[in-house]
Amino acid sequence: MKESRVLGVLGGMGPLAGATFMQRLTLLTPAEKDQDHIPAILWSDPRVPDRTAARLAGGEDPLPALLRGIRGLEAAGCGAIAIPCNTAHGWFEAMQAATRLPILHIVEAAADELLRLGVAAGPIGLLATKGTLAMRLYQERLEDRGYDCLVPPEEEMDRAVMPAIDLVKANKVAAAYAPLAEAARRLIMRGAKAVVLGCTEIPLGIGAGPALPFPVADTIDALARACIAWAKPAA
Amino acid sequence: MKESRVLGVLGGMGPLAGATFMQRLTLLTPAEKDQDHIPAILWSDPRVPDRTAARLAGGEDPLPALLRGIRGLEAAGCGAIAIPCNTAHGWFEAMQAATRLPILHIVEAAADELLRLGVAAGPIGLLATKGTLAMRLYQERLEDRGYDCLVPPEEEMDRAVMPAIDLVKANKVAAAYAPLAEAARRLIMRGAKAVVLGCTEIPLGIGAGPALPFPVADTIDALARACIAWAKPAA
Repeated sequence: MKESRVLGVLGGMGPLAGATFMQRLTLLTPAEKDQDHIPAILWSDPRVPDRTAARLAGGEDPLPALLRGIRGLEAAGCGAIAIPCNTAHGWFEAMQAATRLPILHIVEAAADELLRLGVAAGPIGLLATKGTLAMRLYQERLEDRGYDCLVPPEEEMDRAVMPAIDLVKANKVAAAYAPLAEAARRLIMRGAKAVVLGCTEIPLGIGAGPALPFPVADTIDALARACIAWAKPAA
Repeated sequence: MKESRVLGVLGGMGPLAGATFMQRLTLLTPAEKDQDHIPAILWSDPRVPDRTAARLAGGEDPLPALLRGIRGLEAAGCGAIAIPCNTAHGWFEAMQAATRLPILHIVEAAADELLRLGVAAGPIGLLATKGTLAMRLYQERLEDRGYDCLVPPEEEMDRAVMPAIDLVKANKVAAAYAPLAEAARRLIMRGAKAVVLGCTEIPLGIGAGPALPFPVADTIDALARACIAWAKPAA
């Protein structure tokens, strides 16, 4: 494949999020036939060690597995890399330092999505893994842009958000809706103008039930839009 | 990735079918966490020349693009290849001759799916591209197993089935439901005991509306089940 136009997707974290990313990338691309779509390679390696456990509980370092995927995408001729896993962006700088390919940052894509939703500044809610929250992947980048991040209390993270993420990874997607929708609602009640679904399992759970009556920035769609802008800059 | 367990998926034909295949592979795999899922690489090259046009209208030969994908999946360390595009199986023998990796045949998977649905022999309906029908990819293999294939008349293929497949490739999935559901119903009215959705765009269209009240063999799910059996023979 011609290098400049082929997207590399480092997925498998989780695999349902990576597959759904490919689906949304396809559905959001203006196309009339197969040949109008974006060539892409999805490196779906669900064996990458758990990112939150690595950061918070001394679990195995995921970086070697992440770099193995990046090498594979480079070898396949990709021209840029997208990673539909927010927590893996805790290793963004190490990954970017190890490749000449640009890696499209999911938090920047989420910030662009907030603008697209008409939410330009102020308090926003953040649903993400405990690893992503602890690494402040969103807080620092969004605060630079004029947002304040509200996050669920520790008790709700342990009782509702993390178990719901695990339900999606275990293919029990519908069961993840209620706890995630409730956590999002509480952030809105605390004053958030929108909620960022800052873990790619979360839009899968939220997508399994009725649409939420407030703006949500879906990081699967946000990253897909960034990839389309990269692949089809004229579109 | 360890070669023996990594699945290679030659997709992009169309890209929505390839992405949905990855999603169904994930959802059909027994798993409690990311690391239980099947490592896989999706080579999504939607630039592969149109398979039906190549066979019926002297269009560009897709084989070089198919072989490029197979080389890429080999280089990435895959241990077997699945191709979620029925029509591409018209080049199966040429592809299989060009690689030492086993290619899991989608028509064999569809036949296994018919058995799983409890349809062991007799008349079955076949919805597929004109290329797949002309190459008799299903007729010969299914007749060997005791089935008779009923196919839509030429007029209905041109008016309903092929345009519906093109709608899916153009991301107009919901609009594909009615013509495909009607074509399936007509096959049942002619005596078919089940309908094989023998083009991977067709289950996407059929999935966009109410479930059909007769057995359908979805070739996306059928191929996913064959891949899971390959990757997790003990499961």
